[in-house]
Amino acid sequence: MPPDDVFRECDVYTDLALEASERVRARTGREIPGVAVQEFSRDGIKITRVTIEDENGAALMGKPPGTYVTVEAPELRSRSRDLADRLSGVIAEQLSDLARLPPEATVLVVGLGNWRATPDALGPRVVEQLFVTRHLRDLVPPELKGRMRALCAIAPGVLGTTGIETGEVIRGIASRVKPDLVVAVDSLAARSLDRIMTTVQLADTGIRPGSGVGNRRLSVDRESVGAPVIAVGCPTVVYAMTIAMEAIDQLSQRVPQAGTLRSYLQGLDARGKQEFLSGILRPLMGEMVVTPKEVDADVEEMARIIAGAINAAFHPGITEDEVARYLR
Amino acid sequence: MPPDDVFRECDVYTDLALEASERVRARTGREIPGVAVQEFSRDGIKITRVTIEDENGAALMGKPPGTYVTVEAPELRSRSRDLADRLSGVIAEQLSDLARLPPEATVLVVGLGNWRATPDALGPRVVEQLFVTRHLRDLVPPELKGRMRALCAIAPGVLGTTGIETGEVIRGIASRVKPDLVVAVDSLAARSLDRIMTTVQLADTGIRPGSGVGNRRLSVDRESVGAPVIAVGCPTVVYAMTIAMEAIDQLSQRVPQAGTLRSYLQGLDARGKQEFLSGILRPLMGEMVVTPKEVDADVEEMARIIAGAINAAFHPGITEDEVARYLR
Amino acid sequence: MPPDDVFRECDVYTDLALEASERVRARTGREIPGVAVQEFSRDGIKITRVTIEDENGAALMGKPPGTYVTVEAPELRSRSRDLADRLSGVIAEQLSDLARLPPEATVLVVGLGNWRATPDALGPRVVEQLFVTRHLRDLVPPELKGRMRALCAIAPGVLGTTGIETGEVIRGIASRVKPDLVVAVDSLAARSLDRIMTTVQLADTGIRPGSGVGNRRLSVDRESVGAPVIAVGCPTVVYAMTIAMEAIDQLSQRVPQAGTLRSYLQGLDARGKQEFLSGILRPLMGEMVVTPKEVDADVEEMARIIAGAINAAFHPGITEDEVARYLR
Amino acid sequence: MPPDDVFRECDVYTDLALEASERVRARTGREIPGVAVQEFSRDGIKITRVTIEDENGAALMGKPPGTYVTVEAPELRSRSRDLADRLSGVIAEQLSDLARLPPEATVLVVGLGNWRATPDALGPRVVEQLFVTRHLRDLVPPELKGRMRALCAIAPGVLGTTGIETGEVIRGIASRVKPDLVVAVDSLAARSLDRIMTTVQLADTGIRPGSGVGNRRLSVDRESVGAPVIAVGCPTVVYAMTIAMEAIDQLSQRVPQAGTLRSYLQGLDARGKQEFLSGILRPLMGEMVVTPKEVDADVEEMARIIAGAINAAFHPGITEDEVARYLR
Repeated sequence: MPPDDVFRECDVYTDLALEASERVRARTGREIPGVAVQEFSRDGIKITRVTIEDENGAALMGKPPGTYVTVEAPELRSRSRDLADRLSGVIAEQLSDLARLPPEATVLVVGLGNWRATPDALGPRVVEQLFVTRHLRDLVPPELKGRMRALCAIAPGVLGTTGIETGEVIRGIASRVKPDLVVAVDSLAARSLDRIMTTVQLADTGIRPGSGVGNRRLSVDRESVGAPVIAVGCPTVVYAMTIAMEAIDQLSQRVPQAGTLRSYLQGLDARGKQEFLSGILRPLMGEMVVTPKEVDADVEEMARIIAGAINAAFHPGITEDEVARYLR
Repeated sequence: MPPDDVFRECDVYTDLALEASERVRARTGREIPGVAVQEFSRDGIKITRVTIEDENGAALMGKPPGTYVTVEAPELRSRSRDLADRLSGVIAEQLSDLARLPPEATVLVVGLGNWRATPDALGPRVVEQLFVTRHLRDLVPPELKGRMRALCAIAPGVLGTTGIETGEVIRGIASRVKPDLVVAVDSLAARSLDRIMTTVQLADTGIRPGSGVGNRRLSVDRESVGAPVIAVGCPTVVYAMTIAMEAIDQLSQRVPQAGTLRSYLQGLDARGKQEFLSGILRPLMGEMVVTPKEVDADVEEMARIIAGAINAAFHPGITEDEVARYLR
Repeated sequence: MPPDDVFRECDVYTDLALEASERVRARTGREIPGVAVQEFSRDGIKITRVTIEDENGAALMGKPPGTYVTVEAPELRSRSRDLADRLSGVIAEQLSDLARLPPEATVLVVGLGNWRATPDALGPRVVEQLFVTRHLRDLVPPELKGRMRALCAIAPGVLGTTGIETGEVIRGIASRVKPDLVVAVDSLAARSLDRIMTTVQLADTGIRPGSGVGNRRLSVDRESVGAPVIAVGCPTVVYAMTIAMEAIDQLSQRVPQAGTLRSYLQGLDARGKQEFLSGILRPLMGEMVVTPKEVDADVEEMARIIAGAINAAFHPGITEDEVARYLR
Repeated sequence: MPPDDVFRECDVYTDLALEASERVRARTGREIPGVAVQEFSRDGIKITRVTIEDENGAALMGKPPGTYVTVEAPELRSRSRDLADRLSGVIAEQLSDLARLPPEATVLVVGLGNWRATPDALGPRVVEQLFVTRHLRDLVPPELKGRMRALCAIAPGVLGTTGIETGEVIRGIASRVKPDLVVAVDSLAARSLDRIMTTVQLADTGIRPGSGVGNRRLSVDRESVGAPVIAVGCPTVVYAMTIAMEAIDQLSQRVPQAGTLRSYLQGLDARGKQEFLSGILRPLMGEMVVTPKEVDADVEEMARIIAGAINAAFHPGITEDEVARYLR
């Protein structure tokens, strides 16, 4: 985001901490107090670790304190299998790092979202491809012992089709499974179209109400489920309103004749700008989303990448061939 | 079953109490002590109510005590929409009868089975078509108040793909939802090919381990979930071994030259017959099932019928148009 | 569209003749020579018949000469089953009117689009629900004779997944089936979000290259297939770029401080405006589409409506119960 | 088949030439005149090449003259990824051998069967995973030139859902695409349960009416499409009647007390035996099929294997990574 975005005070919905931090820095023109941002790369892939260190940083960012790791692979659109494999490997490494689990730990993966609404179906699609092992326990072939963890997984559906808060379902199951870690996989909304289907975020903060494509109302975190909760997500949509806002900003930046408009907008306070947007754009855009035409294929490919990463992170000694052999 | 079936002492796997009672009566040649069988019809559809009254009857039948209502519509194969609608209505009536719920009750429907294995997918397909209302509560339009119950529904998947016993999932969810009734919908195995996709069984006994196409290991009943449990199922398969057994029986009945074979078989005790079958048939048949080629379409149609019945039974004042309008 | 839309000279992609005519009229401020527009209503549903009478009208509209009937049901979003049924009936009536087929005619329905890309899957989903009868011919039960036509249907896939132009597939099949009428069903792109999933267009012009969500390159018309071709479509998306353009227009209309911008834009000629848009918006939007989050359910419902209309239009004497009975 | 199968004169439906030849040899006790059988192995996988050399052999085998190559991997049930890859490689090699195509040839792959009936869905599932290239022609990146052929593919559906004979569709398309080779992929019926999902047959004879799970009525061969036709198939079902027959045979072989039955059956001529079977078994079995409960997963896996083989056979210089990169 250019530092002089006319809407920089306005809330633009994004589930990505990376985008939120870009936005806050653009607005304030300096580093964010209480927020540390660290960039590095692995295997040619850019990783950004945003750490929200205190309540001050949380308020500025609009996200709970914790660590958010973003892995970006913009060239994924070219559908390189090799890049997809490297991306999966990097996610596995970062996930393993965040989780720090002993070998005998039990992991519960929750695939959030609605498998009958393609842009919201990432979580359920990931669950379908996991190497689930918790029920094998004593049946595990001796040659696999010590190389895999007890993994279980469920796609609980969404409130609109089950009538049950997803958070209630997860708490109910966790109370019986007693996992050492919960991993919640979800479809996200981003601010930038470039990040759709190319960026993955891992966060050790759990899931907050209102996030994700399907607007989960649940809070799923250490307090509510009794175990640490890592959220893994990938943006599958941008809200239509965000697009329109970006178009107007581009216009006011780049067209000299929009100077009066720009001055006017700059003269508004945050609330005035928000009202401006709501009045002009909201009625036009409703709850529509922007997504690739090929959304089905893109969700499928990203589910393969994330499921592969989860399998590798929690069953570190298992080869892909072994997964195939024992799967199902 | 003809009364002189040579294998009448042998266990033939069936989830239908009706078939079990036919079998026991054929074997013993008389009414079963502790088991009451009552036949009647509604709207041109045959209904049989088998009541297992005590532990004696339960041991003879191989099923827990309780009431099993079987609704049969063999002409459903001709795909009459009118018959399908009547069948749905009769199931609704019987379900409502078994449930005897006050208007303010909460119902949890559980769709057992694996949606990625078509013959086992009936439960999940039913869940997709239910009119779920529990989350609407205070949002219910005033004109619908008092005409619908709080219904919620989940398809928890199967042990092999989740790593969690279905029973654990249901108990976990029930501990939070606190339903007044649980309805568990499942794909069943029958003894007779005629009953595939044409017969529906309702039982107030809950679900026992080992029943259903997917061999659920769970027990889901009043004790384990804290509410009455009604099982609703339809046979989608017959085990291949059952077919072979029936072929041999037919042969020994109808071919005079099989007389020696028949005498030999008749001379064996139950255990001898079972060994005979295991030696000859089991290696041949393994875990294969017999099912219609068009199993996908048949499961879809039966799911529509059962979901319609559940919607009608628990939302007695709601028309189909209203369901469509408020659905989702 | 307001008559003073600043982009009124610019091409805004729409497959709907109704929207094209609104746009041309807004641009010129008067009726379009060579184009007749007639509005009426049936069963509470608004119908607009746009007739492009000559090449002059065709050039102004950017669409081939012919009759375009648009049926609009904006309240369909409330998911009224009753409105859906009325809409289906009105489409059937208009389709029957356009087709004017003798009872013994053969109809070939082609479901254009990619069933693995949900926003483009309308055509294939319609084909799945048709009452196909051409192969029954002499097998037709006597009681149905004279009440149904010979209907056949195919979903030929898309160039990217078959390697064959859809037009080649249809011509090849038509050369053998020799239909009296081809009906081509397709997902469309609209200009206005309000029309997504609520409007159906019928045109007797066939399909031109570049139309539809999937950018078909085919031309399917009377010349190429040897029979009249009626195109039936419903908008499932709006291009992201269209949205952004509308946002800027709204802005320049409604915000006084955008006056300078407006004057500047008004001062540009059509080409200048087009360049303005391409420079600012195209890089931002790429080939992204705007669509409802619930796109899967919406496509399913619209497919049910259109398939019902086709069944009713060509099998005028067949009840829904009879369709169900003989279907498959 | 044991050489003294009591039903050895009877037709047992199988699409596999290998099973037909075993059966004829068992019946006659010697080599079949006009039929050459050759066994060998590649990469640890057994291959049998049955060549029907003349009309005499064809009459005995009930199959048209030509070469039938059967590749067997019974251990595939253990789901070894490594075995699956080797199997795919061996099929590719055999397919390439049968086809003997110049590099500039055009190949049309036809996926027969109904994608809405899982046991019949193998063909369509294969088509979804092919690396389709015919439309790329001049767009082919220079680095791929000469390493891939022009491949196109279609899944034409089945008569019951399209109203058009599959043979008509293929002839129509072939008349426009003018392929140098047609490959028709289909779900087959076998005689032995062991061969379900573990055996693949390649035949240079085209497709005859009545073969395959869906009972295609088409004949697709060099005469009808103007190019050689290779049929590739895998058994997904055994007819229920075949199972019952095998059970009776086992019984009469292995149970001494079935001696009288056996003598009686042996005393019947072919027609008598056929009548015996029809009278006792047909009414019981109808058109039911025997299939694994996990039929969905099994069909998916076999489709992956066959699609991989077709991609490798016709694009010999393309790596899997390149397929992924250019796919779609």
